[in-house]
Amino acid sequence: MTSINQNYLELQGSYLFSEIAKRRTKFIQENPNAEIISLGIGDVTRGLPDAVLKAMHGAVDELAAPGSFRGYGPEQGYDFLINAIIENDYKARGIDIATNEVFVSDGSKCDVGNIQEIFSDNSIVAVQDPVYPVYVDTNVMAGRSGKYNQETKRYENIAYLSCTAENDFKPSLPDRKVDIIYLCYPNNPTGMTLTKEELKVWVDYAKANNCIILYDSAYEAFIQEEDVPHSIYEIEGAKEVAIEFRSFSKTAGFTGVRCAYTVVPRELKGLDAAGNEVLINDLWNRRHTTKFNGVSYVTQRGAAAIYSEEGKDQIKALVDYYMTNAGIIRDGLASIGLEVFGGVNAPYIWLKTPGGMDSWSFFDKLLSEANIVGTPGVGFGQSGQGYFRLTAFGSRENTEKAVERIRKLSL
Amino acid sequence: MTSINQNYLELQGSYLFSEIAKRRTKFIQENPNAEIISLGIGDVTRGLPDAVLKAMHGAVDELAAPGSFRGYGPEQGYDFLINAIIENDYKARGIDIATNEVFVSDGSKCDVGNIQEIFSDNSIVAVQDPVYPVYVDTNVMAGRSGKYNQETKRYENIAYLSCTAENDFKPSLPDRKVDIIYLCYPNNPTGMTLTKEELKVWVDYAKANNCIILYDSAYEAFIQEEDVPHSIYEIEGAKEVAIEFRSFSKTAGFTGVRCAYTVVPRELKGLDAAGNEVLINDLWNRRHTTKFNGVSYVTQRGAAAIYSEEGKDQIKALVDYYMTNAGIIRDGLASIGLEVFGGVNAPYIWLKTPGGMDSWSFFDKLLSEANIVGTPGVGFGQSGQGYFRLTAFGSRENTEKAVERIRKLSL
Repeated sequence: MTSINQNYLELQGSYLFSEIAKRRTKFIQENPNAEIISLGIGDVTRGLPDAVLKAMHGAVDELAAPGSFRGYGPEQGYDFLINAIIENDYKARGIDIATNEVFVSDGSKCDVGNIQEIFSDNSIVAVQDPVYPVYVDTNVMAGRSGKYNQETKRYENIAYLSCTAENDFKPSLPDRKVDIIYLCYPNNPTGMTLTKEELKVWVDYAKANNCIILYDSAYEAFIQEEDVPHSIYEIEGAKEVAIEFRSFSKTAGFTGVRCAYTVVPRELKGLDAAGNEVLINDLWNRRHTTKFNGVSYVTQRGAAAIYSEEGKDQIKALVDYYMTNAGIIRDGLASIGLEVFGGVNAPYIWLKTPGGMDSWSFFDKLLSEANIVGTPGVGFGQSGQGYFRLTAFGSRENTEKAVERIRKLSL
Repeated sequence: MTSINQNYLELQGSYLFSEIAKRRTKFIQENPNAEIISLGIGDVTRGLPDAVLKAMHGAVDELAAPGSFRGYGPEQGYDFLINAIIENDYKARGIDIATNEVFVSDGSKCDVGNIQEIFSDNSIVAVQDPVYPVYVDTNVMAGRSGKYNQETKRYENIAYLSCTAENDFKPSLPDRKVDIIYLCYPNNPTGMTLTKEELKVWVDYAKANNCIILYDSAYEAFIQEEDVPHSIYEIEGAKEVAIEFRSFSKTAGFTGVRCAYTVVPRELKGLDAAGNEVLINDLWNRRHTTKFNGVSYVTQRGAAAIYSEEGKDQIKALVDYYMTNAGIIRDGLASIGLEVFGGVNAPYIWLKTPGGMDSWSFFDKLLSEANIVGTPGVGFGQSGQGYFRLTAFGSRENTEKAVERIRKLSL
């Protein structure tokens, strides 16, 4: 028989959201009349903005006839979308990004999962803890994690940067040499952010210590406060050390439509075995064009419509809707004495479970007593133990109802 | 600086179609009035079938309102599509495939590129020569190829199975131990096929020699002859040794819409380092759910519509259109004494260049003298030297015009 990739055997359990789905399904089977409210998986619920719908219908019509039909597009994305991204997400903030530095894809999950391929298998990876599981699992699959330690519940070769209430969810710099640092801001799952000054510390560290920052900025659109950077490239020198990931999933309701993009500056370099400098942009371009064939034309037309005047207004309304939900959850939970974090520049509320309860016990309590599905913090890492994530992506009605139910619990 | 994946430096030149585009662009710049006909890259040109357009419009409408909105779907694809696939592509041919054996994706290029990840880095890979470059390049990236030999123009650790007119484009069995065999039927680029009996030889070989067949069947819809298998699972025992890849790209004009699927039978097993059997289906499921987030809902609704009665008729008309083109090219070229292959069960015509001309010289001659863009056979491997690929995906008018121009050449 053919030998398998042995690293897969180091993967632990199943993906967090599968476990949640399993417990939820079991509960529904046993309680068929329960009216479940899901504030668990970070999935949006509102309809797509009108400007997007109109653009998608238009694109479908174009595909009807040979004259306007579009087959294979550029793997990196169409210029009409790339130019809109550069103009609105970067140039408008004083950042210069070239067209060959933007790679449109079908999702940030794919991009942050695939990016590690272009680096050495020996790279030492640092992640925040709690962390989006994809960062860790994809490095386990590539053999960078080392063994899983059943006691510490951590991989021995991964550097975990703890983010808890004790350090205001701002990680300390690594205490050992690392090559790749995953940073996610606004953070999933904690909903917390860094100021420009705080992010500058990381950029400077990466420059001084020869590492690359993989900056996941999927929740950028939710930033409300002044001093929170929208792009890592607002920090001087970041182009020499950082790759940035952005997504339309949460910004514009694209979780089921699939569009994201990654910026790989031409200034960013790596080293080959002989010590020569190699452009990371070239490597990613080769990877992207060899293993990917572009995003659906219909989707790209929809994404570009977000940048129209009409689209921008509609996106703002969508973000406002969810951020109002976030405020309702924050205030509601705080009013009964729960310790809550996030929810100001991100659609995630991170709460400390009451009475030192562990995360999964709180999950089960919330499900059985309030019929609410949330996400156990420990599912994102050991530093998430004793925390719990609620999302602002529900309807207003469900969000208010959920908060009411939680207020009535004996906690 | 962070160390890169050193294997990328073993990749040769740029991707075939980039080089074609470069030469084409140069020619157009120098000859702005030339009326170019492209029979090069295997991209479709007709509009999408009505049934598909209708379904996509309907899906966009569903995304408008919270009640019918769809966010994240199952990474493996929606049941409505998976069930249609199983019913029509397998059950109708007497093949049992379970829902958890089908993985819907955004393209066969991605699937055949990504599948190698779940196997050991030490696996020995066999490919047909000529070959779709993605099979080779993705294994180079993973470090399975060994060094590139500038004289033989082949990687030292890859087993190349030559397919030329001498063996009627039917590869011999490997002459050394291999672990993974890529087979593509109907073949890209030669357009040739195997009979059931001939394919059975490969299935039996894989069983006897403990290897896995990666069966790329992206052109299945073009099969016209009786004895040509539509699925490798028509061969007894194939579920124990084969993964099958299918695409809607050419079948239904989805090159810009992005949908494909991969079948990984639960009978298929690999070995871990301790000698234990591992289900390949479990590994692929883990890979697919960790690094991919499902295909656009709009695309999946479009793909499912292909299996409606209306859709089936429209697909058949589309395939007939292209296969009539294939006949026109075949007959036209044969009539002036060119040796032509393929084009009977596939939209590709593979011709022997006249007078022993090499593939790129014939490319340049065809471009400069007939203003036709084709694909040099050598771009697919050394055994493609002296051959040339034309595709049947143009319009009828352009196809006829192209054949007329070739007939007038002095060859």
